[in-house]
Amino acid sequence: MTRFGERDDWVRDLLAEAGDACLRDAGVPSDAVKHVYVSNMASGEFEGQTGVSNMLAHDLGMVGAYTQRVDQTSASGGAGIYAAWQSVASGASDMTLLVGGEKMTHRTTGEATDVIASLTHPVEYKHGVTLPSFAGLTARLYLDEYDAPRESLAAVAAKNHRNGVDNPHAQFRKEVSEQEILDSPIVADPLRLYDFCPITDGSAALLFCPESVAREYTDDYTVVSGVAGASDTHVVHERDDPTTMKGVADSADAAFEMAGRRPDDVDVAELHDMFTILEVLQLEALGFAEEGEGWRLAPDGVTERDGRLPVNTSGGLKSKGHPLGASGVAQAYELHRQLTDDAGDRQVDAAVGLACNVGGFGNCVTTTILETP
Amino acid sequence: MTRFGERDDWVRDLLAEAGDACLRDAGVPSDAVKHVYVSNMASGEFEGQTGVSNMLAHDLGMVGAYTQRVDQTSASGGAGIYAAWQSVASGASDMTLLVGGEKMTHRTTGEATDVIASLTHPVEYKHGVTLPSFAGLTARLYLDEYDAPRESLAAVAAKNHRNGVDNPHAQFRKEVSEQEILDSPIVADPLRLYDFCPITDGSAALLFCPESVAREYTDDYTVVSGVAGASDTHVVHERDDPTTMKGVADSADAAFEMAGRRPDDVDVAELHDMFTILEVLQLEALGFAEEGEGWRLAPDGVTERDGRLPVNTSGGLKSKGHPLGASGVAQAYELHRQLTDDAGDRQVDAAVGLACNVGGFGNCVTTTILETP
Repeated sequence: MTRFGERDDWVRDLLAEAGDACLRDAGVPSDAVKHVYVSNMASGEFEGQTGVSNMLAHDLGMVGAYTQRVDQTSASGGAGIYAAWQSVASGASDMTLLVGGEKMTHRTTGEATDVIASLTHPVEYKHGVTLPSFAGLTARLYLDEYDAPRESLAAVAAKNHRNGVDNPHAQFRKEVSEQEILDSPIVADPLRLYDFCPITDGSAALLFCPESVAREYTDDYTVVSGVAGASDTHVVHERDDPTTMKGVADSADAAFEMAGRRPDDVDVAELHDMFTILEVLQLEALGFAEEGEGWRLAPDGVTERDGRLPVNTSGGLKSKGHPLGASGVAQAYELHRQLTDDAGDRQVDAAVGLACNVGGFGNCVTTTILETP
Repeated sequence: MTRFGERDDWVRDLLAEAGDACLRDAGVPSDAVKHVYVSNMASGEFEGQTGVSNMLAHDLGMVGAYTQRVDQTSASGGAGIYAAWQSVASGASDMTLLVGGEKMTHRTTGEATDVIASLTHPVEYKHGVTLPSFAGLTARLYLDEYDAPRESLAAVAAKNHRNGVDNPHAQFRKEVSEQEILDSPIVADPLRLYDFCPITDGSAALLFCPESVAREYTDDYTVVSGVAGASDTHVVHERDDPTTMKGVADSADAAFEMAGRRPDDVDVAELHDMFTILEVLQLEALGFAEEGEGWRLAPDGVTERDGRLPVNTSGGLKSKGHPLGASGVAQAYELHRQLTDDAGDRQVDAAVGLACNVGGFGNCVTTTILETP
């Protein structure tokens, strides 16, 4: 993956940088690539450039390969993993390059927020409900419903910032104390600036192939043992309980079934902490905590690097950054590094990893389970 | 499929209209659908709405299903067919709904052309080269190189307009004579207004499932015997010969191999006649004519409905219209109607059909072969 942050490059450059690094790292020549998928939400809106998967094939010498862009809003990266997996599992391709990327920081926060909000249902968007405001409303409901302390959300952000310090690709490599988080400017009460992920440029890449082909190149591969996706109602206010992420639960159930695994088997997880409350809700929907108990895991140290279930060792979207189409791919990149003992100062002991990539407010979700061979 | 043309609906409405009609026609309940793919190039740019596949799942009562948008510029529909096929062939889904759609006519022709031109390489775009200008340059080169008469291109447009008259879903249901075409305003010399497809709103839908599942619902299904995609260099001026569509040839070779078919086996074809010259170039790249001989097929009557190889019985993009993300899906829709003897006044005798969907100027291509069971 590229360094995440403010980058003086266009999405085309970022995609090529990550894709090229991925091919070199794996020792796979560009002409071995049959399918090229680009996970990207909005290069047309952000920089007036479309056709980005064709451009990538051109830039990396893969002309002839089939190319396609995968969009599932902020879950585009996870959707790309699912698409790439399907391309191999269907026999259509024996070597698929997936590159996720987005270039956003040249636009104002207001412009970027508007592009992201265009994914919501018009009924909500027209009333001014953006994703951060959903997050504030849901956080308030959750804290009230389960009598959870506001500090528990700050603990999520503080943990992910600590992890980000040790990730050379992260946008923010600095610790932020719980008190600084609680004192940061209000964005959507009760959530404050440091409860939110930043706007980010960046790209990440993965190669998918049959296990027999992977072995020709390396022993350091990982296996996609489970991958599945699901949607939840697109009108968030129609949900029975906005604190229950049904799309997360449905996609996780299917991925666990495919992998023959249970939540207890997972050693490390990358969750979609676009907002701190989302990490808590995902911990519950994924079966890592009981309903109403997810808020306890960060304060109790369970999700720390030395805890029972390290979560967002990469720094998460919170400190690593969230270039929309790249994020789901970067989640699996971090799991791959952890599972192949290549995570440097962030290394944890792990053989089974889970990534959950969320679009909208859980409107669409993919869950991926990676394992050592 | 919906009626193509100027529609007083947003893309959301068009997708729902075609998707709903497809489910009803097949007798498939919405809760049987596992994956939902939307082929769409630019709803964000055209109307500020993204998240359209989630919206469709919501609108048609398919919440829970996995949803994703497939973009491969003007070949998004064909890419959607390939994605939907992979979803079934990989075992990820046993019932996949694919809906392609685009809403364009509320924008000016200049605005729409700019959105489409954003798919081209910046090197070319910055010099003012749009897709219509590529078409003009290539048409001039082709006519010169093979000493072909300008009238041969007009014959393509005249044929497709004749076919469109009998298609109730077509945007233009009127005959246009070769002389009217030759007398229409110049757009990109030597091509004139009636050599170009219009700007169109519309949507089309298909269901994909294993053959055993299809049989539970109907005898009137068709089989995807071959489907493949390929890219060509994204910088068109780098091609050795712009009149040779290598991406078309590569995707067709792979699709024919998968189907165990040859060009001679094809009874009916839907080609991507965004410009008249493209139908001629595809006839050659697909193996239906020798190099430099494709221009003869329309004047000689070979591609007429009563000819040896009827091409664009639907009216093609030329008279049916070209709502970007819908077109590739609508091509297969027409083949399905033809192969199931349900094409009304356009009916030809066919058991094997081929659809070729082209993005950019052949930058990305998918070829699909459909057959009767």
